[in-house]
Amino acid sequence: MLILRQITFFLLLSGVLLAQDRPPNIVVIFTDDLGYGDLSTFGHPTIRTPHLDEMGRRGAKLTSFYVGANVCSPSRAALLTGRLPIRSGMVGEKLGVLFPFSTGGLPQEEVTLPEALRDAGYATGMVGKWHLGHLPEYLPTRHGFDYYYGIPYSNDMRSNSDSEGPLKQLYTTLPMLEGEKVVDEDVDQSQLTIDYTDRVLTYIDEHRDEPFFMYYAPNFPHVPLYASEDFEGSTRRGLYGDVVEELDWSVGKVLERLRERGLEENTIVIFTSDNGPWTTQHEEGGSAGLLRGGKGSCWEGGMRVPAVVQWPGTIPENQIIQSLGTTMDLYTTLIKLGGGQVPTDRTIDGNDLLPVWKGEQEEATETFFYYHLNQLYAVRSGPWKMHLKSVESYSNVTQYTRPQLYNLEHDPSEQYEVSAGNREVVARLRQLVADHTEGVEKVPYIFDEIDAPARTLLTQLGF
Amino acid sequence: MLILRQITFFLLLSGVLLAQDRPPNIVVIFTDDLGYGDLSTFGHPTIRTPHLDEMGRRGAKLTSFYVGANVCSPSRAALLTGRLPIRSGMVGEKLGVLFPFSTGGLPQEEVTLPEALRDAGYATGMVGKWHLGHLPEYLPTRHGFDYYYGIPYSNDMRSNSDSEGPLKQLYTTLPMLEGEKVVDEDVDQSQLTIDYTDRVLTYIDEHRDEPFFMYYAPNFPHVPLYASEDFEGSTRRGLYGDVVEELDWSVGKVLERLRERGLEENTIVIFTSDNGPWTTQHEEGGSAGLLRGGKGSCWEGGMRVPAVVQWPGTIPENQIIQSLGTTMDLYTTLIKLGGGQVPTDRTIDGNDLLPVWKGEQEEATETFFYYHLNQLYAVRSGPWKMHLKSVESYSNVTQYTRPQLYNLEHDPSEQYEVSAGNREVVARLRQLVADHTEGVEKVPYIFDEIDAPARTLLTQLGF
Repeated sequence: MLILRQITFFLLLSGVLLAQDRPPNIVVIFTDDLGYGDLSTFGHPTIRTPHLDEMGRRGAKLTSFYVGANVCSPSRAALLTGRLPIRSGMVGEKLGVLFPFSTGGLPQEEVTLPEALRDAGYATGMVGKWHLGHLPEYLPTRHGFDYYYGIPYSNDMRSNSDSEGPLKQLYTTLPMLEGEKVVDEDVDQSQLTIDYTDRVLTYIDEHRDEPFFMYYAPNFPHVPLYASEDFEGSTRRGLYGDVVEELDWSVGKVLERLRERGLEENTIVIFTSDNGPWTTQHEEGGSAGLLRGGKGSCWEGGMRVPAVVQWPGTIPENQIIQSLGTTMDLYTTLIKLGGGQVPTDRTIDGNDLLPVWKGEQEEATETFFYYHLNQLYAVRSGPWKMHLKSVESYSNVTQYTRPQLYNLEHDPSEQYEVSAGNREVVARLRQLVADHTEGVEKVPYIFDEIDAPARTLLTQLGF
Repeated sequence: MLILRQITFFLLLSGVLLAQDRPPNIVVIFTDDLGYGDLSTFGHPTIRTPHLDEMGRRGAKLTSFYVGANVCSPSRAALLTGRLPIRSGMVGEKLGVLFPFSTGGLPQEEVTLPEALRDAGYATGMVGKWHLGHLPEYLPTRHGFDYYYGIPYSNDMRSNSDSEGPLKQLYTTLPMLEGEKVVDEDVDQSQLTIDYTDRVLTYIDEHRDEPFFMYYAPNFPHVPLYASEDFEGSTRRGLYGDVVEELDWSVGKVLERLRERGLEENTIVIFTSDNGPWTTQHEEGGSAGLLRGGKGSCWEGGMRVPAVVQWPGTIPENQIIQSLGTTMDLYTTLIKLGGGQVPTDRTIDGNDLLPVWKGEQEEATETFFYYHLNQLYAVRSGPWKMHLKSVESYSNVTQYTRPQLYNLEHDPSEQYEVSAGNREVVARLRQLVADHTEGVEKVPYIFDEIDAPARTLLTQLGF
């Protein structure tokens, strides 16, 4: 009995020492264009996501979680810099994202999440879509990642892609990079989820004995949609559902590998999406669930995304967290828990969410700013959201003569405009906007930097 | 060891004998105006329904479950008769439901679910909203229930109700009946959920030693909304959320009592709603989630409802069932598993869902007909839904010159009309409509039977 106690004590002690010696591994899974309503735990009727549903139950489902922009490149910049894209210049006046003909990328002056974690002793790996500059000086390997395997931009940026639009003629093939080297000139997308998953699992295996950060950014369910043989045709939802269920399978594989390697309790895993569903793709685009609008809009459907987080033993299970959080908060949260330094020489738009996830605090973030391109469209403060203007999927901009007010907690679908009864709220939110706008320094807009052939074509198109 | 085996064998044997001797208890919980998107497991961001979420995990969440009508009285008739309301006459040409000035009710010729179960040896109790005729000859006690406690119609059918409209002057107070006797002239609705819950728990206690059917039909979250002290002001969603969370508490209490009494594995519990959310009530109405429309429409939001079912040990846990089911199927399913006789002398619109819930069969029902008042508006067959006309919350009827076709599994929000590419599907659905319409016998419309003062008023109002 005494011996047993001593062994238990020794084990506990080693556990404590281990935990103190070694900060948790961090896995961030950041999907592309997955809508708020596309997981079964977020209410989709014909998509089953058992691994993600279970992950939310083993930890927390976040029902009010936002990305820093309504489209891809700036949203990814927000996650990795902890700043609204307007601050880093990762916006355009006309172009919303980076293209294969872009000449710019994420500025070197930004302190990225992997840089901060690497400084704190982490191995830093990335698998998947980058989309923060495809020229060598902007690649993940120049921004804090020891390891990179993935496609440098969107999976529709290919000359004979199914996606439409005049820019197609400026594209070529869809390359796969390893580090900074092209290892496949033109990717077979039907094998992409399997391929990425395999790389993530190998990375976990190879780094199991040191703290690691794995940023896994699948190119799907962005169009064009491809699923592997096992998944194609397997869901009632059609190809979109097949692709989402294969992503859920992939997440399941990652969680299983962590469990098999005994890393589960020392790894925080976060799953979310980079922006709302691309509704103009009709049945090939996702669903924002009960939220209004989608990708490219500043309605909730454009910027509120499905999110689940688990860290068994640290984050209590079976939570539904309704308070505001953002991917910029992830930056701050993860650097802090990794023992790194959040930069103090610049504005960081994130707050530490861990106390909220641990159930020790009700709110971490009170305010959120909704940008489209380089313009502020709306602000949220607590339950209130005020729209200065609105935009539907990149176009149809409406400038309101009077700001429109919604109570997002009572009316998550933004159906009932309530400014008339809440003048003092409108006044307070106007002040928030004024203070915020004043605090944003003007920087060059990087997405407007494009090569000469592209400039010629865009000029011809009257863009 | 041998003794242990013998005991185990004996216990198993008694279990088998008990199960054969006694059919399962049946609890149907049928809420009022709860929308498809109003439970957390169906994706609501600011309502938490832990008991219902857990119930779905202990059994099945049904993502394609329908009610027989888009408003209250006919929907309840469909559940209790297993027939489309058009067959029983529980419809009106102009009036959608029964009112305190109605002179009709559910016809005695109908074979109700409690009648069929009582014939099979069940104790049959009902707590809650009836709304199938408030005159003595139409009450639950005349339709197969041994026990009744509840309000005979909607909770807004009261002269000084918060609800609006000219019919208010025809109302008086909101009575509570026990059996056929008024036991409270005017109900305090803030205590209603507590009161109903207490009655349901008592019923379970009193009938624990015999097979029982409990039909628990809360009047909420129909407006006017009231929550008890413990719940009022407790949710971010506002009063609507408070009311839904109190209903979730009530369901939790029922499940807890079944567990405490050792009845859990011998009781099937089904939870659903009578129709979609009453969206014209704005923030006081619920949400259809990703579905289009609400109460009073034949879009999915009007007739597809949240549903969960549990029967531990018989229905496998952690299922998401996507195939079509209806409350009319409940009629057939529950009579069959209770050992009763489904009538064979009339058309019954239900099929047995138990094989689907047990995972033995993929589909039980292929077709569903969407009625508004006495008119057929749409039909579903497999994934396809064809609208002949549409209606938004009782009004704005549109008669389509060409039927509108949607693939509900690819496009649950009914956004993308696809008849152009699917002419043969349209032709097949037209034939289904023709065959169905031919099979519906004309019967008197009961909701049009009203008393003289009401007729005078309605005539004055030009109704």
